[in-house]
Amino acid sequence: MRILGIDPSLRRTGYGVLELLPGSERLLDFGVIAVGAKRSELECLREIYGRISQVLVEQKAEEVAIETVIYVQNHRTAILLGAARGVALLAAANAGVPVFEYPPRRAKTAATGYGASRKAQVGFMIRSILGLQQNLPPDSADAVAVALAHAAARRRALASRRSL
Amino acid sequence: MRILGIDPSLRRTGYGVLELLPGSERLLDFGVIAVGAKRSELECLREIYGRISQVLVEQKAEEVAIETVIYVQNHRTAILLGAARGVALLAAANAGVPVFEYPPRRAKTAATGYGASRKAQVGFMIRSILGLQQNLPPDSADAVAVALAHAAARRRALASRRSL
Repeated sequence: MRILGIDPSLRRTGYGVLELLPGSERLLDFGVIAVGAKRSELECLREIYGRISQVLVEQKAEEVAIETVIYVQNHRTAILLGAARGVALLAAANAGVPVFEYPPRRAKTAATGYGASRKAQVGFMIRSILGLQQNLPPDSADAVAVALAHAAARRRALASRRSL
Repeated sequence: MRILGIDPSLRRTGYGVLELLPGSERLLDFGVIAVGAKRSELECLREIYGRISQVLVEQKAEEVAIETVIYVQNHRTAILLGAARGVALLAAANAGVPVFEYPPRRAKTAATGYGASRKAQVGFMIRSILGLQQNLPPDSADAVAVALAHAAARRRALASRRSL
C-alpha cells in the first residue's frame, strides 16, 4: 500500500509518498512544489495540479492523505489555500485515488505521539521513524506526518480485521 | 469576443457566456452546476472542473471573468469556496483562456449602474439589458453580471485605443 501525503499551500505545497511494509514505513519520494512570488495564482494552480497528478502516477499511490484545514489567518488566505487544496484534491479525484482527511493533531500524534508538538519535533521524529540521513524540508515533513496518520489508521483497520 | 462569467460555489456554480456585438451583448449560454448534498466535495470539484472545461470549448470562450471573493461567512466556507473557485480557474488555465477578476461592486454596477444593488435588481436589469423572456437563475445572473463588468472594461479599452 502506497500513500501520498499532501500539505497544500499556494506557493509551497509539500508532499511525501510512504510505502507500508510489515511493521514499518518506507519513504519513496518527497518534495516541495515551490512557485515563485512573481508567478500568478493561475500558474501556481497549474503547477500544483500537474505535479500532484505526476507523482500519483509515477509513485503508483493508492490513497491520498491530507490535513483538514483548521486555522487560517484571514479569509483572503483561506480562499487561496482553499484553491491550492482544491486542485490537489481534483488531481486525486481525476486519477481515481481516494482521499482521507485528518486534523493536524492526528498528524502530529502519528509522528511524535503528542498532538501539540512543535514543527521541529515533527521533523526530528519523522527523520528518526523513517531512518533518514537528513531532515526533510518542513513542508514535506508535514505532508509525511499526515501520511503517517493515515498509515496508522490503515494498520489499526487491518489489525482489528485480523482479530475478528 | 466571447466572455465566460463564473460565480463559483461548491454546490451551485453559476455561469453565463456573453458575445460582444457592436453596442450590445448577446447571451449565448448559461447554467448552474448543481451538485446534490449527498455527493462528496471531490465529486463537486470534478463536476465543476469538467463542466467549465466543456463550456469553454463548446462556446469558444476567449476570456473568463470571475468575482473577487470579498465576504465569506467563516473559514470553513472560505476553504470550500476557495476549492470551487480554484478548480474553475484551473479549467481556464488548462484551456489557455486568460482570467480577469472584478470585485462584486463592479459586477453590480455593470448590470444596474449601482454597486450596492440587491440580487433581485441585478436579475431584473440583466433580463432587460439582454432582452431575455425570463429571469435567469440567481447564480447564473451573478455570473452574467461579472461577464458584463468585463465586457464594459473591454469596450472602454477599445474606445480609448480608437481615440488615440
